[in-house]
Amino acid sequence: MEKLIGAAVIGQSGGPTSVINASALGAIEAALDSDVVTRVYGMANGIKGLLDDKLYIMDEEDRDELKLLKNTPSSALGSCRYKLKDPETDDTDYRRILEVFQKHNIRYFFYNGGNDSMDTCNKISKFMLKNGYPVRCMGIPKTIDNDLYGTDHCPGYASAAKYIATSTMEVYHDARVYDTGMITVLEIMGRNAGWLVASASIASYFGCGPDLVYLPEVDFDMEKFLADVKRIYAENGKVIVAVSEGIHDKDGKYISEYGSDLASSKDSFGHAQLGGLAATLANIVKKETGAKVRGIEFSLLQRCAAHMASATDVEESYAAGRAAALAAFEGKTDLMAGCVCERGENGYKFEIKLLPLEIVANTEKKIPLDWINEEGNGLNEKYIEYALPLIQGEAHPPFVNGVPRFAKLKKVLEK
Amino acid sequence: MEKLIGAAVIGQSGGPTSVINASALGAIEAALDSDVVTRVYGMANGIKGLLDDKLYIMDEEDRDELKLLKNTPSSALGSCRYKLKDPETDDTDYRRILEVFQKHNIRYFFYNGGNDSMDTCNKISKFMLKNGYPVRCMGIPKTIDNDLYGTDHCPGYASAAKYIATSTMEVYHDARVYDTGMITVLEIMGRNAGWLVASASIASYFGCGPDLVYLPEVDFDMEKFLADVKRIYAENGKVIVAVSEGIHDKDGKYISEYGSDLASSKDSFGHAQLGGLAATLANIVKKETGAKVRGIEFSLLQRCAAHMASATDVEESYAAGRAAALAAFEGKTDLMAGCVCERGENGYKFEIKLLPLEIVANTEKKIPLDWINEEGNGLNEKYIEYALPLIQGEAHPPFVNGVPRFAKLKKVLEK
Repeated sequence: MEKLIGAAVIGQSGGPTSVINASALGAIEAALDSDVVTRVYGMANGIKGLLDDKLYIMDEEDRDELKLLKNTPSSALGSCRYKLKDPETDDTDYRRILEVFQKHNIRYFFYNGGNDSMDTCNKISKFMLKNGYPVRCMGIPKTIDNDLYGTDHCPGYASAAKYIATSTMEVYHDARVYDTGMITVLEIMGRNAGWLVASASIASYFGCGPDLVYLPEVDFDMEKFLADVKRIYAENGKVIVAVSEGIHDKDGKYISEYGSDLASSKDSFGHAQLGGLAATLANIVKKETGAKVRGIEFSLLQRCAAHMASATDVEESYAAGRAAALAAFEGKTDLMAGCVCERGENGYKFEIKLLPLEIVANTEKKIPLDWINEEGNGLNEKYIEYALPLIQGEAHPPFVNGVPRFAKLKKVLEK
Repeated sequence: MEKLIGAAVIGQSGGPTSVINASALGAIEAALDSDVVTRVYGMANGIKGLLDDKLYIMDEEDRDELKLLKNTPSSALGSCRYKLKDPETDDTDYRRILEVFQKHNIRYFFYNGGNDSMDTCNKISKFMLKNGYPVRCMGIPKTIDNDLYGTDHCPGYASAAKYIATSTMEVYHDARVYDTGMITVLEIMGRNAGWLVASASIASYFGCGPDLVYLPEVDFDMEKFLADVKRIYAENGKVIVAVSEGIHDKDGKYISEYGSDLASSKDSFGHAQLGGLAATLANIVKKETGAKVRGIEFSLLQRCAAHMASATDVEESYAAGRAAALAAFEGKTDLMAGCVCERGENGYKFEIKLLPLEIVANTEKKIPLDWINEEGNGLNEKYIEYALPLIQGEAHPPFVNGVPRFAKLKKVLEK
C-alpha cells in the first residue's frame, strides 16, 4: 500500500477523565515518531477547534512536559460537546472540515471520546471517503461511564472506579465513628448505565462498602427502597446506599426530579441535566426514618482524581491511543481501538482490538442483568470478577512541593 | 518521683480525621512498650465508652495490624460528641469515671480530640486531683479545623489541606475543558476558622486554584462577592470560588441559610448544622450571571481521604500521640502535646511542645487577619509560607488488590 504522508490531528471530546490525556499522549508520541507524519496537531476544544482552524502544534511542545500528560486529568487540549449534523441534511461543517484538512494536508484524524465522538469520527470518515479525500480516521475510546459497545471496557472507567471504591471505603469508616444511627446516601455518576455506581460494590466486596446499590438498569421502586433502608437500619443502625444519578422509576421519571422544583434543563445533546439526587433521597429517607441522614455527591471529583488513578487504566489508555495511531499509519481507517480481555486462572490479559466505528457509535452498553442481584439492589461476583483486574496498581502524577505536577502545554497555535 | 503503675486508656473524640489513628497508634505503642503500664485500653466511642465501662483491650491486638492504624482514616476506636457537664453543677459523670478508673486501676488517661475534648480532659484531670485519685491526663490534639490555640498547627489539618489543594487543582483542570463560560463554587469545611478553605489557595499559588477565597474571618458581603465574580467572569469566562461553610454576613447570619427554608437543626454542642452552601451560592450566582454554575461540596471526603494524606502530618500525628504518652509515663499531667515550628532559610523544623490544657480548651485560633488580602477574598504569601511545609510528602495505606488495606481491629472487650 502506498504510504499516506501528511499531518496528523488529535482531538478530545465530551466529559474529561483522569486518563484521556494518557490516550492523547499515546497517539501524539506515536505520531511525532512516525515517518509518515509531517506535523502533529491538537484540536483546540475538539471538533470546534477544527471548524475554527484553531490547531496547536504538538511538535513545538517539550517532550518531557508532554510525558506529564500521562497523569494529568481533564482534557489538556480542551473538549467540546458539539454534535455534527447529519451530512444528508446539512454538510456545512463537513465541507469546512475538508477545507481545514486540505489547508494543513491533514491525513490522520484521531478522535478521543465516547459514543457521540465515535459517531462524529465515523461521519467525518464517510464524508471524506465520499468526497475522495484520503484521510485515516480512528477513534480512541474514553468514558468513565464505560458504556461503549464492543469493547471489554473503556479507558477512564477503571480510574473512576478505583477512586469511587477507595473513597467509598473511606466514607464507610467515617460513617461508623459514632455509636448513633446514621444513613449515608452516595450519589455517583452514570446517566443510563450503572458501571460507575457498581464500582462502589468493590468496597462492599472488601467489607467496607454500601449495603445497597441502585443502578439505572433496574427500575427504582421508592417503597421497596425505603423498606430496604429501614430493615438494615433496624438491624445495624448504619446504612450506606450508593445510587446512580440516573436511577428512575418504572415510568422512566428520574428520582432526582422527585423533590426538585427546578425547571429541568437539557444539554446540547438533548440529555436532561441531572443532579441533586443525594439531597433529594436524603430528605425523603430522613422524613421516613427520622434518622440522621447524610447525602454525599462524589461530583466531578470522580472523573478528575488523577491522584488516585488505576495504573492498569493509565497504561491501557496510553496503549489505546498508541495502537489507534499506529494502525492508521499502517493504512487502517474507520476503527476504534477497543480491547478484549481474558480473566481466569491465568490472570488478566488485555489486548487491543480494532472495531468498526459504526458498531460502536451511538450504542450504549449497560451492565448485564445477570450481574445484578435478585433484589435489584446490588451486584454479584460476576461484576467483581470483571472489575477487579481493571483497578490494579496505583498511578499518580509526580508530586512537587506537596502538590501534583500536571502538564503545562505551550499550546502554540498554527497560523 | 514515685512510679505510677497502672493501666492506660485512650479515647478519640469529635469528628474524625485521616490521621487521628496515627496519633492513637503513637500513644498505644508507647503504652504497650512501657514498664509502668499494666494494660492498654481503648475507649469504645470516646468518653461514652468510659462511662459505659466499654473498653477494648489493646494488648489483645496484633501488633502488625495495629501498625496499619497509621494510614487508616476515621476513629478506629469510635468517637462521640458527648459533652461533660460542669462538675460544679453535676458531677455524676465524673464520679462514674472515677469508679471505672478505680475498677481497672487506670492511671493514664489520653484523650485525642479538638477544643471540646481538651476541655473534657482538663475537667476530668481537675476532678481526679480534687478527689485524690492519681491519674495522669494528657490531651492529644486532633482537628482538620486547625483551630486549637497555642500550637503551631493541629494533627489532621495538613492531610485535609493536602487533599483540598490536590482536589482543587484537579477540579481546576476539569472546569477548564470547554471553551464556554463556567463558574465553580467549592464548599469547604470550617465553621468559625478559615484554615481549611485557605488551603484551596495553595492550588492558586501553583497556578491552578480558585480566583476567590472566602473565609469566616471576614464578613461576607453578597454584593461585593457578586461584583468580584462578574468581573472575573467577564475577564476570563471561568471563575472558581472557594467558600468556607461558615461564611456569614455582617449580622452574623450564615450565607448557607440565605436560600434555605430548612429549619435549622443544632448538634449537641449547640453548633448550628451547616451545609448546602455550595448549592445556595450556585443558585444565586446563576440567577445573577446567567452563567453555567456548578456547586461542589468536598463533604466528608476532605476529612477521611487517607489515600492522599500528608506524610509530614502522619509522622507528626504519630509523634504527638507518642510524646503525650511518654510525658505522662515520666510524671507529667494536664498537658496537650502541641508543637512549635520554625520556617525559614534552614527549612522547616517541628518540635513537640507540651501546653497546659486550660490554655487550649475552648479557645479558637483563627487565621491572622494580616494573612488575608486587602479585598478579603484571598490569602497572601504568609499563609502559603505557613502551610506549604505541612503538606510535604505523600502518605497512603498499603494497597492490596487495588484498594486500600485499612486496619481491622479485633476490639476484644474487657469484662
